[in-house]
Amino acid sequence: MTTPPAKQREIHLAARPIGTPKPSDFRVATTPVPEPADGQFLVRNIYMSVDPYMRGRMRDVKSYVPPFQIGAVLDGGSAGQVVASRHPKFAEGDFVVGGQGFREYYVSDGAGQRKVDPKVAPLSAFLGILGGPGLTAYVGLIDLGKPKAGETLLVSAAAGAVGMVVGQIGKILGLRVVGSAGGPDKTRWLKEELGFDDAFDYRAAGGALDRAIAERCPDGVDIYFENVGGAMLEAALANMRPFGRIPLCGMIALYNDEQPQPGPRNLIFCIPRRLTLTGFIISDHFDRFPAFTRDVAGWLADGKLKNRETIVQGIENAPAAFIGLLGGENVGKMLVQIGPDPTR
Amino acid sequence: MTTPPAKQREIHLAARPIGTPKPSDFRVATTPVPEPADGQFLVRNIYMSVDPYMRGRMRDVKSYVPPFQIGAVLDGGSAGQVVASRHPKFAEGDFVVGGQGFREYYVSDGAGQRKVDPKVAPLSAFLGILGGPGLTAYVGLIDLGKPKAGETLLVSAAAGAVGMVVGQIGKILGLRVVGSAGGPDKTRWLKEELGFDDAFDYRAAGGALDRAIAERCPDGVDIYFENVGGAMLEAALANMRPFGRIPLCGMIALYNDEQPQPGPRNLIFCIPRRLTLTGFIISDHFDRFPAFTRDVAGWLADGKLKNRETIVQGIENAPAAFIGLLGGENVGKMLVQIGPDPTR
Repeated sequence: MTTPPAKQREIHLAARPIGTPKPSDFRVATTPVPEPADGQFLVRNIYMSVDPYMRGRMRDVKSYVPPFQIGAVLDGGSAGQVVASRHPKFAEGDFVVGGQGFREYYVSDGAGQRKVDPKVAPLSAFLGILGGPGLTAYVGLIDLGKPKAGETLLVSAAAGAVGMVVGQIGKILGLRVVGSAGGPDKTRWLKEELGFDDAFDYRAAGGALDRAIAERCPDGVDIYFENVGGAMLEAALANMRPFGRIPLCGMIALYNDEQPQPGPRNLIFCIPRRLTLTGFIISDHFDRFPAFTRDVAGWLADGKLKNRETIVQGIENAPAAFIGLLGGENVGKMLVQIGPDPTR
Repeated sequence: MTTPPAKQREIHLAARPIGTPKPSDFRVATTPVPEPADGQFLVRNIYMSVDPYMRGRMRDVKSYVPPFQIGAVLDGGSAGQVVASRHPKFAEGDFVVGGQGFREYYVSDGAGQRKVDPKVAPLSAFLGILGGPGLTAYVGLIDLGKPKAGETLLVSAAAGAVGMVVGQIGKILGLRVVGSAGGPDKTRWLKEELGFDDAFDYRAAGGALDRAIAERCPDGVDIYFENVGGAMLEAALANMRPFGRIPLCGMIALYNDEQPQPGPRNLIFCIPRRLTLTGFIISDHFDRFPAFTRDVAGWLADGKLKNRETIVQGIENAPAAFIGLLGGENVGKMLVQIGPDPTR
């Protein structure tokens, strides 16, 4: 293991974005690499996660996670390797996943750090299909969607980190699965590679999302896994079957709005159709990690579940990766690689 | 028991209402009183129920109940007395509740008819607090609202047939209860007679519904029992606490809309606050009738639950009663009395 450098780069929030974030809202800062004290260890980050929910933390509003501070480093999922340790439970060479992304090195006392085994999957997978996004898909679909074999599942942002897992688990559980995504390459991938029964390009559908869904779900939708919000939610509501479930995971179409947009005009359909909408946050469901890991690692090993990542190289490109994520430039999990990966 | 007359009056739908229903959308028709065949009985209606959901059935759209037909009698909850019987299980003098309102007499083979005991409560109560509206309140609050003592319950249309029961059951279960209603007489009644902790007049609150709720629920709302929709739902969402529940019972503010209005601009709050919205229809929950009847009849007998009705006299005034109901003219359950009541 090489000696860590004296200095490292990290990404700070330079300004609170207004509307779509711009590169100038972020700044690359150079800071000293910290030294681990007794009971601490030093991690070299290899991958960092960019996730849609981070847009919310860039606003100065109270929510379930505190807002990012101007001039301070951003947080986010991180996966790296211990390079120096004075901690009894973390040894040099261990691979760890935590919440200290957007920087090249960090020290930790172990709080919130999870050791992962690269023999199970490449390190990057623990930030996606075997990490928060995978668990989000698993809990949202299974615990909140309450699927029954033969039902129809509609998933929006289906080519994203969460959506691709939702749809594939849906197929494993015997559902008919339809996805929406941006662009023909993504919809082709969903159908031809991931085994979705059908998929449509929401951009090509234009204002006719309702019909795009109705054509692909002629008997209606039992579960709509919501990642998008706005017009997509209204179109989904129009196609819900009685007793349908709508796990509310995200509404990425709204994240850059400065003024809140009106909600769906047909929310009243929830009553005659007896629909249940449930908002959820994955940190409330960490008790499901063992079952999730057992099932999803098993499905990956069996080839029933496929993984895909869009990996941007270089910490200096993290702001562009985040901006691109909000614009749908990723297929599968969007990651930034910031150092060499000995697990590949 | 007097001999039934040869002719009776009934109320037909003359035209599908556009916007707020008008008297000319209804017509009083005179038809022969039917004779019971073998296995049938003849009922003299004493009370009939007017309910907000009937507005939906006046539209020509498929829903969980079929639409009313132009030129045909309206249906709706009815309570009356058997005046002639050739049925083994229904005897002359029995009191029955069914779904044959908007007419003075009807014959039945017993399907959908429920015998009720006027020693438990006056006959009219079986159309309200001991009937569908009461069961709706009971199931919506208890089964879907999942209340825990000490939580805060907000109920809209709190002086209506459902709302007044929701709030009172909330108090019995140890909740802090706040109601919204139209006008100072209703809010005074909720606080002084029904024991609500607080109430506000949504008309006086004007555009400041959000603040009206926040002032009365300073720690936020755990359960919002939704009867109104529109601006009230948006204001309630703004005040929901994490893990809040919103049983969706009705959205009376929208029933006369010809063009659907935009939904709440803050529906996205469901995600960070982990809210659950559940639409429901009472006919899915008739299995709860025994528990409901036991509890609510007991609370009525103990004086823990108070009943109130607004009774309009005369079948010819049924259209006005229905129009008035949509305008909030009732306090408690709105009924039309169409014949003498031997149970009072």
